[in-house]
Amino acid sequence: MNSFGRNFRITSFGESHGAAVGVIIDGCPAGMKLTVQDIQPLLDRRRPGTSLLTSLRNEMDQVEILSGIFEGKTTGAPIAMMVRNENQKSKDYAEIREKFRPGHADFTYQEKYGIRDHRGGGRSSGRETLGRVAAGAVAIKYLSAQSITITGKILAVHGKTDPDEMQQEILSAVDAGDSVGGVVEITARGCPPGLGDPVFGKLDALLAGAMMGIGAVKGVEIGDGFAVSGKFGSENNDPMTRDGFLSNHAGGILGGISSGQDVVVRIAVKPTPSIAKIQQTRDIHGNVVEISVGGRHDPCIVPRIVPVAEAMLALVLMDCMLEQAKRR
Amino acid sequence: MNSFGRNFRITSFGESHGAAVGVIIDGCPAGMKLTVQDIQPLLDRRRPGTSLLTSLRNEMDQVEILSGIFEGKTTGAPIAMMVRNENQKSKDYAEIREKFRPGHADFTYQEKYGIRDHRGGGRSSGRETLGRVAAGAVAIKYLSAQSITITGKILAVHGKTDPDEMQQEILSAVDAGDSVGGVVEITARGCPPGLGDPVFGKLDALLAGAMMGIGAVKGVEIGDGFAVSGKFGSENNDPMTRDGFLSNHAGGILGGISSGQDVVVRIAVKPTPSIAKIQQTRDIHGNVVEISVGGRHDPCIVPRIVPVAEAMLALVLMDCMLEQAKRR
Amino acid sequence: MNSFGRNFRITSFGESHGAAVGVIIDGCPAGMKLTVQDIQPLLDRRRPGTSLLTSLRNEMDQVEILSGIFEGKTTGAPIAMMVRNENQKSKDYAEIREKFRPGHADFTYQEKYGIRDHRGGGRSSGRETLGRVAAGAVAIKYLSAQSITITGKILAVHGKTDPDEMQQEILSAVDAGDSVGGVVEITARGCPPGLGDPVFGKLDALLAGAMMGIGAVKGVEIGDGFAVSGKFGSENNDPMTRDGFLSNHAGGILGGISSGQDVVVRIAVKPTPSIAKIQQTRDIHGNVVEISVGGRHDPCIVPRIVPVAEAMLALVLMDCMLEQAKRR
Amino acid sequence: MNSFGRNFRITSFGESHGAAVGVIIDGCPAGMKLTVQDIQPLLDRRRPGTSLLTSLRNEMDQVEILSGIFEGKTTGAPIAMMVRNENQKSKDYAEIREKFRPGHADFTYQEKYGIRDHRGGGRSSGRETLGRVAAGAVAIKYLSAQSITITGKILAVHGKTDPDEMQQEILSAVDAGDSVGGVVEITARGCPPGLGDPVFGKLDALLAGAMMGIGAVKGVEIGDGFAVSGKFGSENNDPMTRDGFLSNHAGGILGGISSGQDVVVRIAVKPTPSIAKIQQTRDIHGNVVEISVGGRHDPCIVPRIVPVAEAMLALVLMDCMLEQAKRR
Repeated sequence: MNSFGRNFRITSFGESHGAAVGVIIDGCPAGMKLTVQDIQPLLDRRRPGTSLLTSLRNEMDQVEILSGIFEGKTTGAPIAMMVRNENQKSKDYAEIREKFRPGHADFTYQEKYGIRDHRGGGRSSGRETLGRVAAGAVAIKYLSAQSITITGKILAVHGKTDPDEMQQEILSAVDAGDSVGGVVEITARGCPPGLGDPVFGKLDALLAGAMMGIGAVKGVEIGDGFAVSGKFGSENNDPMTRDGFLSNHAGGILGGISSGQDVVVRIAVKPTPSIAKIQQTRDIHGNVVEISVGGRHDPCIVPRIVPVAEAMLALVLMDCMLEQAKRR
Repeated sequence: MNSFGRNFRITSFGESHGAAVGVIIDGCPAGMKLTVQDIQPLLDRRRPGTSLLTSLRNEMDQVEILSGIFEGKTTGAPIAMMVRNENQKSKDYAEIREKFRPGHADFTYQEKYGIRDHRGGGRSSGRETLGRVAAGAVAIKYLSAQSITITGKILAVHGKTDPDEMQQEILSAVDAGDSVGGVVEITARGCPPGLGDPVFGKLDALLAGAMMGIGAVKGVEIGDGFAVSGKFGSENNDPMTRDGFLSNHAGGILGGISSGQDVVVRIAVKPTPSIAKIQQTRDIHGNVVEISVGGRHDPCIVPRIVPVAEAMLALVLMDCMLEQAKRR
Repeated sequence: MNSFGRNFRITSFGESHGAAVGVIIDGCPAGMKLTVQDIQPLLDRRRPGTSLLTSLRNEMDQVEILSGIFEGKTTGAPIAMMVRNENQKSKDYAEIREKFRPGHADFTYQEKYGIRDHRGGGRSSGRETLGRVAAGAVAIKYLSAQSITITGKILAVHGKTDPDEMQQEILSAVDAGDSVGGVVEITARGCPPGLGDPVFGKLDALLAGAMMGIGAVKGVEIGDGFAVSGKFGSENNDPMTRDGFLSNHAGGILGGISSGQDVVVRIAVKPTPSIAKIQQTRDIHGNVVEISVGGRHDPCIVPRIVPVAEAMLALVLMDCMLEQAKRR
Repeated sequence: MNSFGRNFRITSFGESHGAAVGVIIDGCPAGMKLTVQDIQPLLDRRRPGTSLLTSLRNEMDQVEILSGIFEGKTTGAPIAMMVRNENQKSKDYAEIREKFRPGHADFTYQEKYGIRDHRGGGRSSGRETLGRVAAGAVAIKYLSAQSITITGKILAVHGKTDPDEMQQEILSAVDAGDSVGGVVEITARGCPPGLGDPVFGKLDALLAGAMMGIGAVKGVEIGDGFAVSGKFGSENNDPMTRDGFLSNHAGGILGGISSGQDVVVRIAVKPTPSIAKIQQTRDIHGNVVEISVGGRHDPCIVPRIVPVAEAMLALVLMDCMLEQAKRR
């Protein structure tokens, strides 16, 4: 479905080439100061067209708040936010109307629904993440007032960890009509202990679902992640001190509940499937055909995923903060 | 919370040393043949005490079906299943009543609830997974009738991939009073295309949440997982043919929706935190103390996680099958 | 919260004097023809300003579909619909900024949230029902294709059951600066048997919640309703025939599940609390004050509730139709 | 489905003639004292066989708490409670195996599921309410500590309001092989203002759904209920004073949110459909047949519904109390 969260619940709508994309937040506490200026800067960070390395689709993505605010404060009513789609070159997408782009959702949407808005990926477009970032901005503001800060960073692009080398990898990919993937790490500092629930509502389970629900993400790790599989228990356990822990292999989560340490999440981002290089695929009639995906596509989606992953982390934490309020 | 799934919804209860552990299934289709014999063999697979390499707690774990069955068939009513706890050596746990075991949920439960059933980990015990496996057995039977099969296997233990070497690693850990982790891969064959929903209900997001919600799991990958971060798009995209795909880097999921290929998930399992080796920790009064966790603990939880991970995969797929029924 | 339904799930937003009111539908089947022309006529029925007997606030309430439609058909993606607020005479509401209107949500919103958009009732305004009617129009279209029809009618106004007398009661109330209530009956014809679930998901329970959730409704009956309390079982049971039933005291629902007979629901609508007559109340400072509620208010909300109640019945039935699809 | 509530969430299981009936509570705050002695007295109130006027099925209905309690206190983990079925005279039900009892769920269950546990009504039996009452007992204890008290009373039986006359009506019905209905009123005193949510989560909507979800209930009223339909606004509005309200026509709820006044709910209970009198019905083969429902049935279910309705009111209020905790 298109809703996320139990207490700070967001519902997302919109397609790449429809009239608008947006989000409704249900469950935001009343009395919190909120204006468009709290939202717009975060949307600007995920906006395309800001550098040579990202998609050339250049839209201003101005957010409008439609409800839930009265005299500059939240009222407890749903906060609806919307961004009009402006720069819709639908004609660019004529070729993919009938061809399934490899690595894309084209084939599976067609199988699932029997109908598909092919223009720019429709609902599966990265433009859907606008709603997440707008809602995440509200959560980030709320968490910030509780001294919880969220930061994301790129750890690697195509195997390189040096920023200059990362950039070079992307430029090389552009030249080759190809694309590259990478790894992003998101950290929350200042989380109180006690967030998350046992069994199916574990904080790490919520985070894994949230992160894997971002398009292009194929792996999620908490703390030491896959490295734990090669370790001894005596190496991996974090010894306790009077004031906390001596290490943070656990990534700030024990038994699915935050420990008060930094919450550390890493995600694997696949190379953008839309590439100019010729690939083999099928069309909707069953014929094997060749495809070169034109249009304005990011050669590496990693930088633009950072604010989206930050937003998802904020949404999960805020939801858990409100959940925890019931327990006290 | 303690419920999982939207359509085939399970609710779990019970602690390691309470009266019983169990599960209620809500939403199982009516008219399906079901007896204890469909459930018990899967519970036996996760049972401890079956080899030298697993915990010595030897319980028969006999499941009782309390409701939802009439003359050998499901009626559409909730199916409650229960296993009585028998072998509860609570005195073994006297030492950990006041000490937080490193790597365990002891500290975080205490912080969250202000009260904690310390005996055998209470609610955070692996015994909670009995309910998942019992419910998973029902899902596995349902899926099997639709020609969907689920298999799990151990890919590595403490970095070793050869079975004999894996066993040797576990025995060495036992000798050292230590424990080791590993990697498990779970695969579903025969999935129809179209399972999963866009945006927040993606099949991979559901799977990531399901798997990370198993205690001891610290990482989840779909298809090529973290390896995609070092690849070109032209390498990672799966070309299509008339009948399907030429490769399966995507792990059977595109845009969050199953493609008809094998669904492939890998999980990283941490070394059991309960070890005999002396570790530093804190007690509930704030003193730094030493702890050696005695009792009957698995030196490596990896083998016993396999049936649990299979159960979670089955639960997710069955839930998506029922969800998909609404779309047609 | 502001969402309703499990399978055909709507989320509502907007205040009387905010930028817009609207709704998102999540879970509408794909491939269904849908245009603004399917929605607008139903909105027009609930529109104020259409007669002397209803509020003079005259807005065109033109709905815009923001997402979820491609080439005239639903795609399975969320359908967002919005109506801009135009005719906002906020100055009319200056007096009620500080005074709690008797019979209104003013006091309880202030207590709950500590902040309140007083203009036209804010979120508690009847304008919120626009979203319900827009979403209900989609459900009505879907049900109609399954030969299920929904009709509502006014049974009584201020105790009168003759239409001319009802109108006279309303005019008299206007003259007196007062308001009157009434009773509405909504019927669904053509429902298949099997809709609704046992125990907490009973069709009548869903309907009762749906109807009582319409502002101004203070009572709900199914079938013979309160009259059953004075009857013998032998009078109230509906005898069965080869083809159905000899009577319909049950209102089409047995054990919470539709029987195939007409589903019959009645609701009691209170007199509009906003009246010109002077009443005693309190202001936000705790002073006892007098109030005469000016502005443009319906002397009798009963006629405008009919399309809202029809919409709620349609939403419940469509949700149950999709739920039932999982059972087959 | 078989779950109820968002924050204090209960899941019910069991059939009249299965192994057991019971309930799981998920979301009970930790640290609350709780023993079987808090539950058993309320179950005893709804127990059959306690007077000549109720069913002769005489079971002790001893509840067992299976989980969620440690050293006499709740731990925050799910509280599973179970009552074994003992007195199952299944042979009494041989006749109704093939005949649909008029006024019962037999026909609709058969239509919905294609299979039906006919023994004593199976899942649709009043025995299912044991779980509600057991869970309600926990909520009542919690509310009581917050000075919220819940009381139910019988207002009428078969149109009579005097207790002696009510009893006479029931005895006359027994003599005639018939049954009678009645009206129950449930009141909560001490509710703080602010409980309930706007739009679809209104307190009155939750209560209406909760009450109509009790078998045999055909109508629900809040405050003055259906009587509002014949009143003027000036009569129905409750004027405010410095300390509260001058009257309580609203039944303690304004705009779906509690006002701090008594919350007053009335329900209409139908006459028990199981009667000895001969009625016309159909069998599962489509033949028109006669039926006289033997066995041990209440001639009037009204007295036994009182504790069930109290439980449902308590469950809704506790759920809203926890929901409200998130808003502060």
